[in-house]
Amino acid sequence: MLSRVTIAVDAMSGDVGPAACVPGALAVLDAEPGVELLLVGQPELIETELAGLGAAQRARVRIVAASQVVGMDERPRDVIRRKKDSSLRRALDLVANGDAGACVSSGNTGALMATAHFVLGMVEGIERPAIVAEIPADGGQTFMLDVGANPSATPDQLFQFAVMGAVVATDTGGRPRPRVGLLNVGAEDIKGHELVRAAHARLRASRLEYVGYVEGNDTFTGAVDVVVTDGFTGNVALKTMEGLARMIGGAVRSEFTATPWRKLGAMAASPALAALRQRLDPRRHNGASMVGLAGVVIKSHGSADATAFGHAVRLAVVEARNDMPAQISAELRAQAG
Amino acid sequence: MLSRVTIAVDAMSGDVGPAACVPGALAVLDAEPGVELLLVGQPELIETELAGLGAAQRARVRIVAASQVVGMDERPRDVIRRKKDSSLRRALDLVANGDAGACVSSGNTGALMATAHFVLGMVEGIERPAIVAEIPADGGQTFMLDVGANPSATPDQLFQFAVMGAVVATDTGGRPRPRVGLLNVGAEDIKGHELVRAAHARLRASRLEYVGYVEGNDTFTGAVDVVVTDGFTGNVALKTMEGLARMIGGAVRSEFTATPWRKLGAMAASPALAALRQRLDPRRHNGASMVGLAGVVIKSHGSADATAFGHAVRLAVVEARNDMPAQISAELRAQAG
Repeated sequence: MLSRVTIAVDAMSGDVGPAACVPGALAVLDAEPGVELLLVGQPELIETELAGLGAAQRARVRIVAASQVVGMDERPRDVIRRKKDSSLRRALDLVANGDAGACVSSGNTGALMATAHFVLGMVEGIERPAIVAEIPADGGQTFMLDVGANPSATPDQLFQFAVMGAVVATDTGGRPRPRVGLLNVGAEDIKGHELVRAAHARLRASRLEYVGYVEGNDTFTGAVDVVVTDGFTGNVALKTMEGLARMIGGAVRSEFTATPWRKLGAMAASPALAALRQRLDPRRHNGASMVGLAGVVIKSHGSADATAFGHAVRLAVVEARNDMPAQISAELRAQAG
Repeated sequence: MLSRVTIAVDAMSGDVGPAACVPGALAVLDAEPGVELLLVGQPELIETELAGLGAAQRARVRIVAASQVVGMDERPRDVIRRKKDSSLRRALDLVANGDAGACVSSGNTGALMATAHFVLGMVEGIERPAIVAEIPADGGQTFMLDVGANPSATPDQLFQFAVMGAVVATDTGGRPRPRVGLLNVGAEDIKGHELVRAAHARLRASRLEYVGYVEGNDTFTGAVDVVVTDGFTGNVALKTMEGLARMIGGAVRSEFTATPWRKLGAMAASPALAALRQRLDPRRHNGASMVGLAGVVIKSHGSADATAFGHAVRLAVVEARNDMPAQISAELRAQAG
């Protein structure tokens, strides 16, 4: 039987707030009998979203009051200093106190990362936290990090990212021996900054299953399980994917509705279109682990709806059960030993 | 009437060689009455591809013999030193001598760039050449540079990229006053390296229509005409787009052929699917300008077929007619004056 685990939910977070976070989190109760929820935020708003809940499930949910909300544009240092009773901060405090095994928030990435760093501290041996994105790929998914916690990274830090990415790929992606690639550019003559070359040497000397340099397109082919890069490059890659996917989605919609005949064609093709939509649904990949922290923190997309938020909560459950920070610590020791 | 212009074609280049480059280039003769072609490479192989050509068109085509071919994996410095009679080198020599107004090649990017730099030299005031990619966007296209000529760039060089991108957007994209954005990441706290911030200040002080920072997803929305970044980040973004587009294309194919009913649905939807395929066809955007050189050089994708290669040749015609290097020089003076 799976162990009990408590998830702290920043219920006020994201563009939608409790109306997405609460139903999204509640949906996990059915699928995960061992899970309990701490819903953090303004009690009356959260209570409204619990209206239809049966008694058995209601008993697995507790509301934790927090009077403040963190805005999407607030500066991290101001949040740490002035938003001590915010839902974001309280949810992280619950992890720090041991009352919860993980925290999930759709809030301001910079504020969440900085507050988590301040409240939880780091895994020993990891210098900087990183954000891991799960990217759909042929035959499964690829894990990319860092996608935005740090604008740059040293070779040692890139090695640490590789270790953390490998742990995530094993524990949430089910890869026993994840293959790790280092993101670089193709043209032989300009292959890499000095920094990338130094990281390449560091990774080659490690005990990881390091396959060498990969290019941007290799993220989608299943050639590797983990793609390592700095937070600037990774963030650009991730946002580029989001933008292109949205543009292609728009093109599909506009071509299939351009004329009445096209709309009829779309009806005939609707099973394939529905399957396609499901296969490429970004909500199925919502939830980015903030790794390297001495606690499990999952960042959900700011625009996440209930379905997407539920996926992020399920990821939090998996990482809390596996005690991801302890796994990272163990893997670092194994690499050094 | 449009002026006459001569295009030097590296006919041995790319995965396919003369069988793609020659028919691709010939297709331009019909559409562009003022164009003449110099097809550079092994005469017997090129001659074979000219078999069906009428006398009037044949008179506008000349074969220039070159005995060597540059491989996709050859090191740029070796190509410069040892491949002086290669089709790539001879095609660039024709531009340097004034026999051609532009060169088009599907060859090895690093070798083409380095040889072009060596043979043609630079526009005065431009420190480093850059590669410009044309990216499909809502309502047209966006021009991104650098997508791979230099692994890093100083703030001054990023400013020069912006000037060159604006010239390309005006001359080949028809934008009278192109809006320029600087690629950055979103989270407020880590907004940019120091280097990106310095480039931001440099661009703000310029006379360009600079709109500020943009993120990876803004490339596709038509919010800007030019996206400026270093060659490492730009190359990762471009390769990421290629990889994602290929994955989505594969998903469309597999969902529309999964069952006999789905295949019937695809037949009913075929007008929309065909329109979609055309709209997203990467061949329509083939051809990357190598700007900053004192001559027009267009890099075609290594895997370009005749249709794609023809697009690159048409781009060469436009840039040769506009004398892009002179335009860049004039815009640099206007910025300084």
